[in-house]
Amino acid sequence: MRAVALLGGPKEEWPQDIKSEFEKAKARHDLIVGVDRGSLLLEEMGIIPDLAVGDFDSLKKDELNKIEKSVPDIRYSNPVKDWTDTELMLKAVFEDYHVLDLKIYGATGGRIDHFLVNLLMLLNPEIRHFSEKVTLIDQQNIIKFYLSGRHLIKKEAAYPYFGVAALSSIQNLNILKAKYLLKNFSSSYPRVFASNEFKENNDSFELNFTSGFVSVIFSKDLDRFDHVIS
Amino acid sequence: MRAVALLGGPKEEWPQDIKSEFEKAKARHDLIVGVDRGSLLLEEMGIIPDLAVGDFDSLKKDELNKIEKSVPDIRYSNPVKDWTDTELMLKAVFEDYHVLDLKIYGATGGRIDHFLVNLLMLLNPEIRHFSEKVTLIDQQNIIKFYLSGRHLIKKEAAYPYFGVAALSSIQNLNILKAKYLLKNFSSSYPRVFASNEFKENNDSFELNFTSGFVSVIFSKDLDRFDHVIS
Repeated sequence: MRAVALLGGPKEEWPQDIKSEFEKAKARHDLIVGVDRGSLLLEEMGIIPDLAVGDFDSLKKDELNKIEKSVPDIRYSNPVKDWTDTELMLKAVFEDYHVLDLKIYGATGGRIDHFLVNLLMLLNPEIRHFSEKVTLIDQQNIIKFYLSGRHLIKKEAAYPYFGVAALSSIQNLNILKAKYLLKNFSSSYPRVFASNEFKENNDSFELNFTSGFVSVIFSKDLDRFDHVIS
Repeated sequence: MRAVALLGGPKEEWPQDIKSEFEKAKARHDLIVGVDRGSLLLEEMGIIPDLAVGDFDSLKKDELNKIEKSVPDIRYSNPVKDWTDTELMLKAVFEDYHVLDLKIYGATGGRIDHFLVNLLMLLNPEIRHFSEKVTLIDQQNIIKFYLSGRHLIKKEAAYPYFGVAALSSIQNLNILKAKYLLKNFSSSYPRVFASNEFKENNDSFELNFTSGFVSVIFSKDLDRFDHVIS
């Protein structure tokens, strides 16, 4: 079973095709998951979540009522807690629903402490072993996660750049068969190698490391509305 | 001497008053700094940087010519390099210009590997000791950095929330006199405590830890253009 989740990040950061992605997921009978305000945003798109997780404290009473009437599985979290809503969602999705692949939208933009929780929660040892099944997606970036070992990483169509982020201490990190190479890098603190590219005529690069936790961020430039500051 | 820098992040993430902030800085004879495309964006605002740093490979030839004619101090970086443009800027600003306070705009949004470089570069031991002088600012967040010790942290006007992010391993982290308390937290990997608030009638909280590197993210909600997905 696959799953697709929406968190509460601003719509401005969503990919343009997000509604059709959720509609396709619904048609495939994937698990549809809303976290906190994400549950309401899904209902506004006409998609009823199968699972909703959150303390829902940012919702009005009638908004929460709507979710409680329509969503079959609701998990309430406590605002004073050790686990965040998104961590609880990951535990439910992987431990109770045994999903093999989870795409997360709405994880970026807005309040940066929220984004950092969504990025760094996967370091939690109780969740880390699920991390290779998780992808964060926004309008400009696709973020994947890797445990120690050797990985052949394929290019994402239309995403010409990638960055490699060691999110914790790292041992013997190698980036091979890419435009910019890295050999045997070790560090006791996080370090990011940004703006790398795939080699011409090569749709993959090799990443390997002996210990640590790495995220690969695939990205593209965006034709933004170039507003004039005056 | 104080300094204000603009990096190449998207304008959509800039605070609304950015132009007047740079004009006020210019009038105070602060050091004005552009990093890569940020140098051109400053000139488009009518502000000539005092210092420009970058490989400038995203600029057209006539755009680079314009910067080379007007900016008194230009530092060229090498795209195949150990130090990023922003790290080189920090070294120049603190080691050569001896500034006491550096505000950085344009560090967030867009390609997430770029943002993570801008956030995590301050962990670099050659730069870390300057980090308490650095502030990252965007339309919704103010990010500050703290070395080990005891800190009384004042509220930023109009920013009701704060998150505390241990960006590396951390020992004995305490968050005191805030809405949500944390006592003696230690971890071998990064961990974020988001969505905290100041106590009523209290415009500060206490942060202390014995080793590690912490960022505090002050944030506010934004009245965004709530576009309809249909």
